[in-house]
Amino acid sequence: MKRAAFAALLLATTSAAHADTLIDNVRGQTIGANGQVETFTGLLFDNAGVVKRVIHAGDKKPKPRKEYQYHLDGQGRVMLPGMIDAHVHVMDIGFAALSLDLSDTTSLADALNRIAKFSAEHPDRPWIIGRGWNQELWKLGRFPTAAELDAVTGARPVWLQRVDGHAGWANSAALKAAGVTAATKDPAGGSIDRAPDGSPQGVLVDAAMELVDAKVPTPRPEDRDLALANAQQILFKRGVTAVADMGTGIEDWQAYRRAGDANKLYVRIMAYARGIDQMILIGGPGPSPWLYQDRLRLNGVKLYLDGALGSRGAWLKAPYADAPTTRGLPQLNQTQLGNLMSRAAMDNFQVAIHAIGDQANATVIGAITDLAETYKGDRRWRIEHAQIVDPKDFARFAASGAIASMQPVHQTSDRLMAEARLGPDRLAGAYAWKSLKAAGVRLAFGSDAPVELPDPWAGLSAAISRQGPDDQQPGGWQPQERVSPAEALAAYTADAAYAGFAETRFGRLAPGLRADFVLVDTDPLTANPAQVRATKVLETWIGGGKVWSAETGMETGTTSKR
Amino acid sequence: MKRAAFAALLLATTSAAHADTLIDNVRGQTIGANGQVETFTGLLFDNAGVVKRVIHAGDKKPKPRKEYQYHLDGQGRVMLPGMIDAHVHVMDIGFAALSLDLSDTTSLADALNRIAKFSAEHPDRPWIIGRGWNQELWKLGRFPTAAELDAVTGARPVWLQRVDGHAGWANSAALKAAGVTAATKDPAGGSIDRAPDGSPQGVLVDAAMELVDAKVPTPRPEDRDLALANAQQILFKRGVTAVADMGTGIEDWQAYRRAGDANKLYVRIMAYARGIDQMILIGGPGPSPWLYQDRLRLNGVKLYLDGALGSRGAWLKAPYADAPTTRGLPQLNQTQLGNLMSRAAMDNFQVAIHAIGDQANATVIGAITDLAETYKGDRRWRIEHAQIVDPKDFARFAASGAIASMQPVHQTSDRLMAEARLGPDRLAGAYAWKSLKAAGVRLAFGSDAPVELPDPWAGLSAAISRQGPDDQQPGGWQPQERVSPAEALAAYTADAAYAGFAETRFGRLAPGLRADFVLVDTDPLTANPAQVRATKVLETWIGGGKVWSAETGMETGTTSKR
Repeated sequence: MKRAAFAALLLATTSAAHADTLIDNVRGQTIGANGQVETFTGLLFDNAGVVKRVIHAGDKKPKPRKEYQYHLDGQGRVMLPGMIDAHVHVMDIGFAALSLDLSDTTSLADALNRIAKFSAEHPDRPWIIGRGWNQELWKLGRFPTAAELDAVTGARPVWLQRVDGHAGWANSAALKAAGVTAATKDPAGGSIDRAPDGSPQGVLVDAAMELVDAKVPTPRPEDRDLALANAQQILFKRGVTAVADMGTGIEDWQAYRRAGDANKLYVRIMAYARGIDQMILIGGPGPSPWLYQDRLRLNGVKLYLDGALGSRGAWLKAPYADAPTTRGLPQLNQTQLGNLMSRAAMDNFQVAIHAIGDQANATVIGAITDLAETYKGDRRWRIEHAQIVDPKDFARFAASGAIASMQPVHQTSDRLMAEARLGPDRLAGAYAWKSLKAAGVRLAFGSDAPVELPDPWAGLSAAISRQGPDDQQPGGWQPQERVSPAEALAAYTADAAYAGFAETRFGRLAPGLRADFVLVDTDPLTANPAQVRATKVLETWIGGGKVWSAETGMETGTTSKR
Repeated sequence: MKRAAFAALLLATTSAAHADTLIDNVRGQTIGANGQVETFTGLLFDNAGVVKRVIHAGDKKPKPRKEYQYHLDGQGRVMLPGMIDAHVHVMDIGFAALSLDLSDTTSLADALNRIAKFSAEHPDRPWIIGRGWNQELWKLGRFPTAAELDAVTGARPVWLQRVDGHAGWANSAALKAAGVTAATKDPAGGSIDRAPDGSPQGVLVDAAMELVDAKVPTPRPEDRDLALANAQQILFKRGVTAVADMGTGIEDWQAYRRAGDANKLYVRIMAYARGIDQMILIGGPGPSPWLYQDRLRLNGVKLYLDGALGSRGAWLKAPYADAPTTRGLPQLNQTQLGNLMSRAAMDNFQVAIHAIGDQANATVIGAITDLAETYKGDRRWRIEHAQIVDPKDFARFAASGAIASMQPVHQTSDRLMAEARLGPDRLAGAYAWKSLKAAGVRLAFGSDAPVELPDPWAGLSAAISRQGPDDQQPGGWQPQERVSPAEALAAYTADAAYAGFAETRFGRLAPGLRADFVLVDTDPLTANPAQVRATKVLETWIGGGKVWSAETGMETGTTSKR
């Protein structure tokens, strides 16, 4: 008895000494339990990657070999909680890195050159797949055409998604593979760009994209595994340690599980299934448990109510300023929307609904308000994008309890397009972060990667400045919608975790939470927007393990211990 | 340094004493590493459920509190390795327990009474689902009809699978739901039982079953979870600790994973996906790792080359004795079979092919022989059932290296039907266990549950006697095909593990293998066939944890420690 007690004591002290890590001499900033910024100087975490203590200036210092075994000098660097991107498409980030990127093309001619080059470099690929084009940036004044693609690509199918993922540009071979002809009718929720004679011109919008998507060869599981590995590297390089994955399919989920089973899943993924069927297939009778030490959970379902602003798929209350014959269109009617939300909520799945236009947002707010009477408790309904909200709906939005999952960089990318689509009178409710926050709505920030780069520093910079990398526009676009640096940080960390039911697991640096953090060269709470944008990530840690550093890049190995 | 060393020593001794379990005073029988029977008197296993020592008569006894902490007296009971059923349908075992069981009906009238009763007891179910009927046992001389069902079930759809799963009996409501009319053509690989005027009579054979199956409401995930829990209980009650699951779909797999994630997966499942698409979806680029402490692995794929003997879907070299116009039919042509096998083998998936008729077996043996030149290494091709093999093919079977995965009870159930279908001249190759074994083929035994009960004791009894529960036929049917008790035990344990690439993990009782065992009241190596059949399972243990006992039934709790 005595011997056993002694052994237990010995074990407790020696194992603690052998397990814990102290990183001190940091300029730490985290959101605290009270939602306010808390500064700290050091972090002590155990071998399981859980924070034991946050050390503040003036605290008694932990003792080496007694309270910790490993000691790292933070060298005065800035330590922040790992960034959480509340809206990404994980696999698409990886696939985009493996496909043709047209996002920085400046003209149609530039794009065609790049397509020709990529095509020549990849003679083995049965299809050329790419994304990122934006006819607005090209100042083309129209959609590009299949004929223009044919001239540089020949008989191999080519399929290129627009930057917002809401339109696709096909060459003639891809149109042929999809069977799209003058006789093809516009599907519900989509349209085919046509010549005056009705023949398809090459671009397919929203639901019409499925005609070609269905013919694109499915990626092999090996491709998915490679895409996931790529996506993780891309995220860690930018300091992102957790994401909400919007539109997870069973193949994606299986790739996440393969990585988890092989101890190669490092990033934390809060998954939202691609529709109800996939939700049931992945989650079964309810959300999955947190798997792999809080690295994977199916939280719920992603639904779409409307399309995007660029392709005029967003559903507005009044007609588009630059296309007065349309106000966009819903992809679901009121009954369908309610039924799908209800089906998810009845089994305690969280519901995240894509809504861009002000009519879409108003409709979702109404649906949530109605459903909240039946599905009580802590539901955390999410509206994804919430881009254009009628100011008359701000208070209803807040009263509904919905979380606004918004992407600051969309504002800076979309600025001119939004002005064209909406005209001057509807901008007060566009990307209205501060107004929503002031009304009492909780914000979760993200990137919508790969639509934009999964770069939280660009997001933080846009959030506090309403200016993009071009410093446009001077003084900020609709600058009254800026949020404070602390509000922006909260939306990228603690509140993004809350938005995924993860606030007791990660998102802040506090005892009992996972030791997910970054070391960076800039303090986002005091630096100017340009400096914040230029933040260099020095190290990214997840669950007490270093997964990336600026010096060595990706840290290989497995998560087996952590 | 000194202190640390002492602590480590203390830890080693105390943790060993606190962790290990000794069960002694047993009459132990296991297959040894050399394939021969090995007797033992005790088993020592650690807290992780792994065998540390097998104690033999005359061995020095382990010392209490030094070598083990927990001590159980086996009270002279017989200890065997957990039984492995090499061919079951796990979810169907569970669903069968939740549906109407007609397997012990003795006449059509008896069946109709039971159907009417079940229908009245379950007014809430949208469909009445059942299985187990056998018009041969009823001595009906024809298939039953929809009209007969209509008389007792009314307007609610009814769909009842034949005992072998190769035919289904629908009422008019089910036929209507499936759109089966006189105008419906027989699909490839299937047939519709018709009246002289061509109208459907009610029974659909093989591929035609899909017409109705597609309309049966899909079970909810909750139903699947319940079915899995039921299936485990049914298996453990009979001493089965591991199974090969033949035809796993993604929904099944997700149920297995849900149970694994919740520490409620106790049975060991070696899964074979339902076709290539499900194989890729479940396994991805190759077989899954062993998950949940060796409780789940996707080994490979299940393919079908032909149907069953009862419904004359088995593909014979010569016409059926009782239907001279047909010799059954293949469900794949030679090229398709080779392509599917090749697709699986190229990614190192194991291939298990259903082959019942002698032509099907000859064709599979040929395909394996051809493919083995390309896909070298340890492939363990499996032929499922291998029921009718032309004696001319025994040597080729052995030379191909294929494992014969056979179900002893099928012989006793099918005896009269096989005589009718095959006539007297083809019985030498029917259920030819001993001949295949003598030719050098490795046998793995199973039940095909829920086609038969997952009862290894009935299987062992049939294997050594060629007699069923009715003691028919006297002296045994084709008694030269009996195997020895030791051969039968090996086929239900060590060789069934080998057939699933599990021989280094379980299937025998030996150091380093999982402590999966049963305590029973009968020694199958010395008892007579009737005694073996009547074996009472007293306790079932998996991974060093008791999962079932005759006294208390299912042992609840979780697998978290084990």
